[in-house]
Order: sequence, then C-alpha cells, then structure tokens
Amino acid sequence: MHFSIAPTAAVPGLLARIDGKTKPPGSLGQLERLALQIGQVQQSLTPSLDHPRLLVFAGDHGAARAGVSAYPQEVTWQMVENFLSGGAAINVFARLNGLELQVIDAGVAHDFGARRGLIDAKIAFGTRSYLEQAAMSSAERDTALVRGAAIVHTLADQGCRVIGFGEMGIGNTAAASLLTHHLTGTRLADCVGPGTGLDDAGLARKQALLAQATQRAALSPDADALSVLAEFGGFEIAMMSGAMLAAAERGLLLLIDGFIVTSALLVAARLAPAICDYCVFCHRSAEPGHQAQLRALHAEPLLDLGLRLGEGTGAALAWPLVRAAAAFLNEMASFASAGVSSQS
Amino acid sequence: MHFSIAPTAAVPGLLARIDGKTKPPGSLGQLERLALQIGQVQQSLTPSLDHPRLLVFAGDHGAARAGVSAYPQEVTWQMVENFLSGGAAINVFARLNGLELQVIDAGVAHDFGARRGLIDAKIAFGTRSYLEQAAMSSAERDTALVRGAAIVHTLADQGCRVIGFGEMGIGNTAAASLLTHHLTGTRLADCVGPGTGLDDAGLARKQALLAQATQRAALSPDADALSVLAEFGGFEIAMMSGAMLAAAERGLLLLIDGFIVTSALLVAARLAPAICDYCVFCHRSAEPGHQAQLRALHAEPLLDLGLRLGEGTGAALAWPLVRAAAAFLNEMASFASAGVSSQS
Repeated sequence: MHFSIAPTAAVPGLLARIDGKTKPPGSLGQLERLALQIGQVQQSLTPSLDHPRLLVFAGDHGAARAGVSAYPQEVTWQMVENFLSGGAAINVFARLNGLELQVIDAGVAHDFGARRGLIDAKIAFGTRSYLEQAAMSSAERDTALVRGAAIVHTLADQGCRVIGFGEMGIGNTAAASLLTHHLTGTRLADCVGPGTGLDDAGLARKQALLAQATQRAALSPDADALSVLAEFGGFEIAMMSGAMLAAAERGLLLLIDGFIVTSALLVAARLAPAICDYCVFCHRSAEPGHQAQLRALHAEPLLDLGLRLGEGTGAALAWPLVRAAAAFLNEMASFASAGVSSQS
Repeated sequence: MHFSIAPTAAVPGLLARIDGKTKPPGSLGQLERLALQIGQVQQSLTPSLDHPRLLVFAGDHGAARAGVSAYPQEVTWQMVENFLSGGAAINVFARLNGLELQVIDAGVAHDFGARRGLIDAKIAFGTRSYLEQAAMSSAERDTALVRGAAIVHTLADQGCRVIGFGEMGIGNTAAASLLTHHLTGTRLADCVGPGTGLDDAGLARKQALLAQATQRAALSPDADALSVLAEFGGFEIAMMSGAMLAAAERGLLLLIDGFIVTSALLVAARLAPAICDYCVFCHRSAEPGHQAQLRALHAEPLLDLGLRLGEGTGAALAWPLVRAAAAFLNEMASFASAGVSSQS
C-alpha cells in the first residue's frame, strides 16, 4: 500500500490577505492559523469547503466481551440503528451544522441487511479478542484500509472538500489505548481511561486486561504501525486510517475528532507524516489518553469542552469554527476596500 | 433604576431528561451544563432559542485622543460603516451562524445621519476624557442605561429569546481596564493589556495614563458600580449594562463576549448578582484583564481561541455551541425511545 502525501506549501499572498482584513493583526487568534492552513491545503487564497461530510465508522471488538467497556456489545448495533433513524447526538449536531452524515458498517457483529443510509463495508462480525490472538489478519487489515480509501475517493470525485471522522464501537477506547501506547511510547497506564464511564473497579480491570493483551502480543518496541494496527485495532479504526490517508492524498481537509479517531490518525501519520498538515484537531477529549496523542502529534485542538462521547461529535461541533475561518478569509473587507485607517 | 432579576430555579425532570439521552451520562461535558442552564433560564424541558440577535454597541472615548489605543479615534465610525456595509468580522460570523445583527450608535463622535440598519441611541459625540474629569454625567449614564434597556424590551416583545453582546469603540479596552480594576479589586497592572495591539512602549504609556486616571478620580474603595461607570465608562458600555439587565429581567439568554462586554456585565452584576444565571460566557479573551473578570464572576467560558477582536465575534463564534446544547436536549432520542441498552 502506498500513499503519496506531500506537506502543504506556503501560498504567496495568503498571509498578507489575512493581515489585510479589517481587524487588528492576529486578533482572530487560532482562527487565523486555521485560515492559513485551509488556504495551504487547497493552495488557494479563496478556499471553499464544499460538500462537507461526516463519516461514522462502526465496528465491534472481540475483547469487548471480556469487559473493557461499561456497555454491552449490542449497543454498537443499537447505536447504528439510532444513527439511521436520526436520534443520536451526531445526527443532531451534523444536521444543525450542515454536515451530511454517512454511516459505515466496518465490522459490526450484527446483520443489518441492506439498509438505506448505511454503507456496507463489513470486514467481519467484529474482530477477534486481542487477549487471545491478533484482532485481525493482515489481509483483513489491508482490506479495511482499502475500503476506507475507496469510500473517500468516491466522495472526493463527487466534489467533497472536507471529511469529518467519527466512530462507534463498544470497546474501542480500549483498542485506542493499546494503539496509543504502542505508537507513542506513552506508559500504558497513561493511555487508559474510563471510556464511556467505567467506575474505579472497572477501570482497574480494563488496565489489567490491556496489560495482559500487551504481554500476549509481545510486540517489539519498534513494531511498525500496520502490525500494531492488526494486533489491537478495530475494523472501524483500520478503515478510518485508510480513509484518512486517501483524504489527505486527495487534498481534502480532515476534521479529527477525539481519542479513537486520533488513534487511527496515529497509524496514518506513521505511514505518511505529512498527513497532519491536512488535519484540523477539533477538540480535546476528556479521555486521558487523548493528551498523549495530541502531544505526539504536536496538535492544538479548537475546542476543550470535556466531551467524551465519540461518534464524531467533537468534529461536528467544531465544524462551524472551521467554516468561520474560511468565511472571514473569503468575505471580510480589507482596510483598503473598506476605507478604514490601519494601525498608527 | 430598579431591575428585578431572580436567580433561575431548578426545573423538575430536566436533569433526568439530559441523562436519559442516548449517550453516556456526562459525556457531552460543558454542553450538558449549558443545556441545563438554558432549560432553567426558560423554565422549560424543551427550550427554544428563537430570533437570536447580536447587538453591537458603538461609542467613542475622550481618552482615546491621549493615546490609549493603537488605532486613531476615527476608526470607530469607519468600522461602524464597515458593519453597515457587511464587511467586518462580526458581519461574516453573524451571517454564517444565523444571528441577526443590529448596530447601535451609543455615542460615536461622528454624524451618521439617518441610516438603514443603525439604531440611533447616541448620548453624545463621545465621552469626556477621564484623564481630566468624569467620562459622563450621572444623567448621561442613566439615559444610556435606559436606552439600552428599551432596545432589549422591544426585541423581547418581538419574540427574541437570545441576545449576544458586542461593541466597537477605539479606546474601550482602556475603559474596561479601569472598570475591572475598580469593580474586582484586581491590581490595575493586571487589568491593562495591549488591546488591539499596542507594543511594549504603547502598553507602558497606557498603564501610566490609566494610573493617572485612577488617581485623578480618587474613588473610595467601596464606590458603587454606577459611580465607577460614570467616571470611566463608555456610552457603549453603559448602554450594554442597561441592555443586559433588561435582558435578564425578561428571562432571555445573554451571550457574553470578551473583555469590554464583560466589563459592562461587571456593572450589571453589582446591581443584580443573579444576572449571571442568564449569561453564557462565550470565550476567554487573549486580553489579560479578562481573566480577572472571569475569576470575579466564577465563569467558565466555552471557547479559548486567543481571540481579541471584540465586536461580539466571540459570542457569534460560540453561538453554534449554544444552539447545539438546546438541540441535543430537544432532538436526541432517549435510551428508552431508541431501544438502546443503557450502562451495565
């Protein structure tokens, strides 16, 4: 698998265009850096954020049955049903903020049949338990990467310029913890958190199980990202990694949600470090392992609201800020055009 | 002047309604507290945020001519013209996020004539310089408060449920610094910042001028808020204080922007402390004195993007989050209605 992702380059005149707007230089803070990034991703002084999509990748985890989550495994498919009928948080936020939502079955342990609004990209009915063996085979992992990339290529062909990433999968904070530990070198204990809401005893059990999984896998410290992904990943995570790589390759802007989405990005960033130039880090999750991920990626997120829901909710909530950054660049008057005196 | 503002009361069933939504309890973080607040302000399980407005109050400051700003005084009226023709940052953000914008001449040193889209509430052609005398008389201050309140009552009569506050006035970070010093007891040096972009020498001069103004006024440490307001305030600040008090009295939700808007709230909160129950603190400004204000009001803002533009831009940018909080409360399915298993 090869992905060709170039770092984004400076755009002549872009910084001057931002500074010429009728506001004190720098006074829009992080939005100005965001406008610069968007312009660079699109190599344009007048970027457009057409046809934004939010993709929610769903998958089940064999290890969920061992008790790494506060919720039973069937909640994954029940929540997919909730997405399809429009009642989940991500439906509300995507609808409100003008993001078209697309739900993808990457590997849920449930037969949905053919369903309107659900993309069937199922690799299997959930991964195997990484407590006993690798979560997926190399072939399954590669298929997941390829299917994720294919979904994005289709959207890019249709004119989509922005993709937000979200996920659903009971047990997937546990998988994300293992990926984060192995891909950032952070102590496992600092990568494990309560997820959807484990109590102290539940958290201790999760920590012990994940330590056991790490011992079982016995990966070398310099194991490559794809091996780590196959060992512990979920199908939804692998499919997101493939989708992200394709999105950056096509020059799209990527809206990165919280802990699980960022674990998929850790994999993608190992394969193509320049991918981060295309990523907007939407929020700082309350899940402790997210801090280690953000540090490793040198990322400064837009929102810090104590969210820990997943589904892409942080991306959907940050989207209006991204849109605002492009809008001020495109629509604000300049000191010259508005006849306003500049700084004395 | 009397304002009757009651603390908001708990709404039976509201917390259970928030916790019953298809998400782990508490997983929407600050948005859940916001939904609770909105429900309490409206005493409703299904709050509605109809007809949201953003009011931009503009005024000039006599002290601006002494050099407390990086920009010349005429920028105030030039920016009002920019607002009227739709080219300023606040126009872009309000338009993008569905807030109707209303510009109010509270006391700009310029004759606009009768203008479409501009509410003429002018008290005078700018305040007097607080370096020499009180910025306004008690009569001017009271007129400003009353006119601010009247504007809000008209909007509330028309069905408006949310008011965002913004301002424009060269020199008004200096006035806000003086108000903050006197109303929070914070050392003056910790209340003074670069505003629109003073360099170190400019900041030192601003500090010295404001220390001089404080000495000249020689207010007693327990001076009442209305005296402090008359001594140092701008007409746009006084008019905002009156508008805020009326808004809370009418049970509206108030979107509080940054440093200058919060200085108007400090005055209002001295007159009616319960007003803060009605306030959403939209962002943490890069202007250092804003931290002292937020501490004094025990406020936790939604955004922290290093903004320091004013105009109400922080309020307009945070508005989609406020709308999202009400939307999840109104539109999300519950575990029961969606048939999703809850926590084990």
